[in-house]
Amino acid sequence: MNIKHPIKITGVGKYLPQVVLSKEIEAKHNIPVGWAEKNSGVQQRHWTGNETVGYMGAIAAQSALDNSNTDIKEIDLLISAGASFDYIIPNQAAVIKSQIKNADQYHFPALDINTTCLSFLNAFQYAASLMNEQTRKILIVCSEVSSKHLNEKNWETLTLFGDAAVAVIVEYDTSKESCLIKSMHKTYSNGVDLTKIEGGGIKKPFKFFPYDEELHSFQMKGKNLLKLANKELPIFLKTFFEETGYDIQSVDKIIPHQASKLGLLLFKKMYSLNEKVVLETLHKYGNCIAASIPLTLVDAIENKKINRGDICLFTGTSAGFAIGSLLIKY
Amino acid sequence: MNIKHPIKITGVGKYLPQVVLSKEIEAKHNIPVGWAEKNSGVQQRHWTGNETVGYMGAIAAQSALDNSNTDIKEIDLLISAGASFDYIIPNQAAVIKSQIKNADQYHFPALDINTTCLSFLNAFQYAASLMNEQTRKILIVCSEVSSKHLNEKNWETLTLFGDAAVAVIVEYDTSKESCLIKSMHKTYSNGVDLTKIEGGGIKKPFKFFPYDEELHSFQMKGKNLLKLANKELPIFLKTFFEETGYDIQSVDKIIPHQASKLGLLLFKKMYSLNEKVVLETLHKYGNCIAASIPLTLVDAIENKKINRGDICLFTGTSAGFAIGSLLIKY
Repeated sequence: MNIKHPIKITGVGKYLPQVVLSKEIEAKHNIPVGWAEKNSGVQQRHWTGNETVGYMGAIAAQSALDNSNTDIKEIDLLISAGASFDYIIPNQAAVIKSQIKNADQYHFPALDINTTCLSFLNAFQYAASLMNEQTRKILIVCSEVSSKHLNEKNWETLTLFGDAAVAVIVEYDTSKESCLIKSMHKTYSNGVDLTKIEGGGIKKPFKFFPYDEELHSFQMKGKNLLKLANKELPIFLKTFFEETGYDIQSVDKIIPHQASKLGLLLFKKMYSLNEKVVLETLHKYGNCIAASIPLTLVDAIENKKINRGDICLFTGTSAGFAIGSLLIKY
Repeated sequence: MNIKHPIKITGVGKYLPQVVLSKEIEAKHNIPVGWAEKNSGVQQRHWTGNETVGYMGAIAAQSALDNSNTDIKEIDLLISAGASFDYIIPNQAAVIKSQIKNADQYHFPALDINTTCLSFLNAFQYAASLMNEQTRKILIVCSEVSSKHLNEKNWETLTLFGDAAVAVIVEYDTSKESCLIKSMHKTYSNGVDLTKIEGGGIKKPFKFFPYDEELHSFQMKGKNLLKLANKELPIFLKTFFEETGYDIQSVDKIIPHQASKLGLLLFKKMYSLNEKVVLETLHKYGNCIAASIPLTLVDAIENKKINRGDICLFTGTSAGFAIGSLLIKY
């Protein structure tokens, strides 16, 4: 897609469960002091207790509605964008909708989009493609719980992942102040096995494969992921910026998926980018799957690191293996 | 959405696992002979052995490609539309893509859309919204495995559900022979608890809730579902047909979701419709979640019950609770 779609982010909200310090995890699991920050780059993250995906998502949504003085009745569509779900059926957006105050009085559709870590980008692109006089306000919710899929013996994933919910309200912007400039997503099937939660689906159904910490937890081949990303990302981004009038050096802000410490380092090095342009929240939130990119956006908005009209690149990789980018005028 | 989008179905394919007769299920589970057909309306359905969602989906996709002389390299996007998944991560479309011959050589995106039983309708609408000179061919795959979520003590669901995969290729149709006339989807949150597979998600994670036949299987409140559908469907369809130039009596074919025997009966009675207009496959395939509507379409194409240019209504209900409809010129 290469057309400028008038779409504006007008409200954001978030919900973060209990904070868990890396030193607490290290103490509990006999991990050397400092290992987590050194290796995963994460000082703290938030992990759910009994909070569900729906509960967190609904609170984030309410916060976005309140922050933008939006009434739930103005919402034309709710998209749940992410890989976490409370139930196998119904779909997660329907569950989130049922937990937002007064949303049961309105019958706007509730739909799930899932490209794992890149789900927010696809949801934003979909929202942009729908925007018109009839569909004016869309609520995108990324509510992710990774902490129930962590293998306590796998320090790499145990210290990397966090839980968070973020909600973003996007609106049809007739003033043309804000827009989606371009979006692109590519799936590289040679990397399909590099990131997995293998158990719990139809391949190894729970009926026949009881809970096993390895089978039902994140499995990542970190080195292979970095190798594939390093090969494909430059080719992807070169194509992505064609005909946009921008390149990676000329955008105002870059919000990468907070995939890993090494991934972020290599990305900055590859393009000689610094922390003023490349926004990071990995150290305080960890990798929150699809919530990472919008959470970093919310952090930037709250801390005035992004200004209305900024040209902003969202970019990242996901399981699958996929690369996705979105260029917006904020 | 109320704009005519040029989109044409140019290829279909399916995969059906092993057939299982109702009388076999009755014999195995001490159900009275004839109970299944009398109550669920299903004489036979197909159930997987070791087949996965990805395996079935890839075969259906290959069949659709072959039937339409489409090369995989022509595909611009793969959408997996449904509620079944092989792994929690990566997303199902990425898994299906990795199993289609030669698809690893092309990097088209692979994205999941999930509104449970109505997923095909939302995927079709999404595809239509993207169609342009750059995005010309989209592969929609609905691959559903319900048989791993059946409670053997719950005769209603045990005899109702089936497994199937269907693939549909849609193309940008510049000839304007075929189009999407209108789509609509509404989510009624007062019905969120009426259809569920409760376990296996974050609400009741595997880690803390071991396999339990009731918890990890379909739970349906059939009577309440019918009551809600009977109340909301006429209101929904009245709004849906506004400004289309059609009504439910004037369309050529209606493909409803094959939700249940009683649901189909009440729908036909409500609008005085007969079997020539309302296409049914429940008796031979059961309720195949999101695959039911496209499977009934494929059946109609194979048996020459639908002609190019026919005005065709896809309509149904889903968990959530939701109602969705799509009006196309085939």
